[in-house]
Amino acid sequence: MTVTYAYEALPVAEWFRRNREIAGFQNPARAMYQTVRELVENSLDATEPYGILPNITITIKPVDEAKSWYSVYVEDNGVGIPGHEIPNVFGRVFYSSKYKIKQHRGVFGLGLKMVVLYAQSTTNRPISVRSAAVRSDKIYEYRIMIDTTKNEPIIVDMREYENKYKWHGTAVKVVIEGNWLNSKKRIEEYLRRTAIISPYAEIYFKGPDMEMFLKRRTIKIPPPPEEGLPHPKSVDVDTVKQMISESKTATLAEFLINNFDGVGEGLARSFLEWAALDPNKPVGSLTQDEIVLLVEKMKAYEGWRRPRADWLSPAGPELLEVGAKSILGAEAVFAVTRKPSSYSGHPFIVEAAIAWGGQIVPVDKPILLRYANKIPLLYDEGADVARKVVDEFNWQNYKVKFPAPVAVIIHVCSTKVPYASAGKEAIAEIQEIEEEMKLALRDAARKLRIYLSRKERELELLNKYTSLAKYVDEIA
Amino acid sequence: MTVTYAYEALPVAEWFRRNREIAGFQNPARAMYQTVRELVENSLDATEPYGILPNITITIKPVDEAKSWYSVYVEDNGVGIPGHEIPNVFGRVFYSSKYKIKQHRGVFGLGLKMVVLYAQSTTNRPISVRSAAVRSDKIYEYRIMIDTTKNEPIIVDMREYENKYKWHGTAVKVVIEGNWLNSKKRIEEYLRRTAIISPYAEIYFKGPDMEMFLKRRTIKIPPPPEEGLPHPKSVDVDTVKQMISESKTATLAEFLINNFDGVGEGLARSFLEWAALDPNKPVGSLTQDEIVLLVEKMKAYEGWRRPRADWLSPAGPELLEVGAKSILGAEAVFAVTRKPSSYSGHPFIVEAAIAWGGQIVPVDKPILLRYANKIPLLYDEGADVARKVVDEFNWQNYKVKFPAPVAVIIHVCSTKVPYASAGKEAIAEIQEIEEEMKLALRDAARKLRIYLSRKERELELLNKYTSLAKYVDEIA
Ligand SMILES: Nc1ncnc2c1ncn2[C@@H]1O[C@H](COP(=O)(O)OP(=O)(O)O)[C@@H](O)[C@H]1O
Ligand SMILES: Nc1ncnc2c1ncn2[C@@H]1O[C@H](COP(=O)(O)OP(=O)(O)O)[C@@H](O)[C@H]1O
Ligand SMILES: [Mg+2]
Ligand SMILES: [Mg+2]
Ligand SMILES: [Mg+2]
Repeated sequence: MTVTYAYEALPVAEWFRRNREIAGFQNPARAMYQTVRELVENSLDATEPYGILPNITITIKPVDEAKSWYSVYVEDNGVGIPGHEIPNVFGRVFYSSKYKIKQHRGVFGLGLKMVVLYAQSTTNRPISVRSAAVRSDKIYEYRIMIDTTKNEPIIVDMREYENKYKWHGTAVKVVIEGNWLNSKKRIEEYLRRTAIISPYAEIYFKGPDMEMFLKRRTIKIPPPPEEGLPHPKSVDVDTVKQMISESKTATLAEFLINNFDGVGEGLARSFLEWAALDPNKPVGSLTQDEIVLLVEKMKAYEGWRRPRADWLSPAGPELLEVGAKSILGAEAVFAVTRKPSSYSGHPFIVEAAIAWGGQIVPVDKPILLRYANKIPLLYDEGADVARKVVDEFNWQNYKVKFPAPVAVIIHVCSTKVPYASAGKEAIAEIQEIEEEMKLALRDAARKLRIYLSRKERELELLNKYTSLAKYVDEIA
Repeated sequence: MTVTYAYEALPVAEWFRRNREIAGFQNPARAMYQTVRELVENSLDATEPYGILPNITITIKPVDEAKSWYSVYVEDNGVGIPGHEIPNVFGRVFYSSKYKIKQHRGVFGLGLKMVVLYAQSTTNRPISVRSAAVRSDKIYEYRIMIDTTKNEPIIVDMREYENKYKWHGTAVKVVIEGNWLNSKKRIEEYLRRTAIISPYAEIYFKGPDMEMFLKRRTIKIPPPPEEGLPHPKSVDVDTVKQMISESKTATLAEFLINNFDGVGEGLARSFLEWAALDPNKPVGSLTQDEIVLLVEKMKAYEGWRRPRADWLSPAGPELLEVGAKSILGAEAVFAVTRKPSSYSGHPFIVEAAIAWGGQIVPVDKPILLRYANKIPLLYDEGADVARKVVDEFNWQNYKVKFPAPVAVIIHVCSTKVPYASAGKEAIAEIQEIEEEMKLALRDAARKLRIYLSRKERELELLNKYTSLAKYVDEIA
């Protein structure tokens, strides 16, 4: 037996280029959908949280039909990107402005780079960008590729010119191998469902053989989410270690007060007393074992406040109801927005709506529409914890017998949505989230039961009247 | 509107620590399963391809029941890891010996690191390793953690001692937060199904409340897969660029002959003639556009040979039949191993088996057992292209009317299995693979149809006899 040991470290950009399937770029149709999705999400993230009413234009054009090459163009009126940062955000994997405790659509610092890498691998064309940050004197244009061996941008060319009218926003154009026929429906559905949950957005989409204009339906934009702090109950050892390394001289009490959500002087002292820890000990002097103990105690303590909701921006029951009626043509919709909860230090809110009757055709198990941070999720339903919850739900308890005309909408918003894959299409099986989904469903289902009971009674009453009428008829 | 632009680059190890859900570490039960899986797969990869009959021992023990901490221990008799490489393979994300065109269970260079990061985040304990490479004079022991800000190993401690008996192999122990109750069944099933497709492995598993010994059922080990070359028909521009940068002075003809699967002198010349390219041009002098053109022509050319099969190690129809009978207790099994095919330069083989009757209960859609490179896939079935193919298959054409007692096994082996997520649980929707799955299913279903027709005829005959007998009876 001869064994040769040959080890190699793969650079991160090259790794993602080779494994692009795990980020949703698995075939030309899905890659086209994913490209639109990544760009549109960035546009929404660059507008809504800053109080800007989003105007987004998307254009897909064939470039070379024989080779299935298409250009995808997305333009927004967002806050833009500072000129010198443009190469980084397009050319370095994991470079992002969204690693904050704040609700964003983007989370991975990966989307743009995957688009660039996919273009590079299929058509070998650079991505084109035009952007101006808010109040920037200049507009910048770049053409960029990625050096995958170094995880660095290659600037193919760039120019800058005067920003006369103080325009701000971003426009991106990329040429990729795509499949319009097989992605068209999904892209349309994605945009339509985006407009439903973000009715303050205006979206214009022009494809090779169609045009779609999703008008703004309200100018009421949700209050921008604030940046938050991790919740003390569900933070892990490594995170606490990192936090400690950044504030070594603080005492234990100070450390808790400054770094965690909803921890004031009083609460910090009660906790430390309960945990039998010295409030005046500098955190820098804690041993590894003491840090582990601290985290365990934080996990076990029951006295913390609920995570604050003002970092999160749920859709709210009204919007879900309107949405469900318009997507599904339901006869009645029952929506619930749960109180905030948290997992691993990240606050989240689950919302659910149950839609009944109307144009919904009776099905053997409920139709499910999923959203995460206002992004419609269209793929990988089978891997999503929401599907599991809906399937295991005890519908009989709520007067639902299948086949029944029932559909469910589930929306999770969080400062960190735990996606089960880098393609951001399914929510992982996190116990805390699963639990909240069940409760949201139960709350909505209770309302449905009341509605169905009332309908039953009305029907009975009607039947009684009818037979009474018949009886009266007969004796008459 | 005040906008602050704050960008940050996340180091790769920290990124995976934060996003561990996408690698299968999404809750304590699944993380426990994933830990076993990553370690067992490494053990199989360190034995079978080198002609070593695998002996694998797995032990799970509670460490602290109140906190749900468990130790997971996996030991093998494989080729081991050279001492100086141990810190790297455990402590650097994307460090691997498997970035070769060769069939491996591992593919991402990520498994061990995810185990270390998960342990670190939940119990903050280092991983312990003992290993000796083949013919090594020493046995090495390390305890390792990962510095996530640098993607570097932290060596907590190490020692080395004489390898008197020239032992080779690897033993790994890790303490994690787990959930035995909820992972037990899956781990057992995973191991059982591993043993079925790798009957030359001997696996001993001891859990907190059970013991399982999967005996070796054959000492026939498949011929070790060879390392291969990419197939010319399905390689992408970026890959070709990289290959060119490593052999600039070669002529086009030489470049093709040396770097691609099944391309000899004659074939290279026919192709270059067809493509109107100069065989004597040094590849280093090709412009970007010429490289793009070259790749396009390579894609379009119809004269290439089929990818070679000797790099791949399918299970074979006999093993699938025996396996299906023993897992499912089927009455009859029809198995097919397709010829090799390729996608994006990677050869692959699809195998399928259809199992019928016996202990299989009639179901509305076929039960599906999935394998990839001999790894059983137990999660995320809904996101797997195999599920789609089985669901869309026209079963009626093959005399199958649901509910029917039918189950399907699908095995994909490839030098690169296109997983849809870093957790390696579902195969992405790659058109070439989908197509081969359909054909494999069709081939197997044809055999099923013949079987069912014969049964039908026998039944008819039986009925005829019975009624004839009755008739004879009556006239007698
Ligand atoms: N349309 C846009 N407008 C403003 N900034 C953008 C836009 N698109 C991308 N960016 C910036 O580029 C960064 C990287 O984007 P991306 O790779 O998609 O990762 P993510 O969105 O997860 O951060 C974003 O964090 C954001 O700062
Ligand atoms: N049990 C083992 N025996 C020998 N080598 C191993 C073992 N486990 C891991 N390795 C080495 O460590 C490397 C990294 O392992 P891992 O992080 O699981 O990634 P991958 O298996 O995808 O390469 C492997 O490529 C292999 O070289
Ligand atoms: Mg993004
Ligand atoms: Mg591995
Ligand atoms: Mg990933």
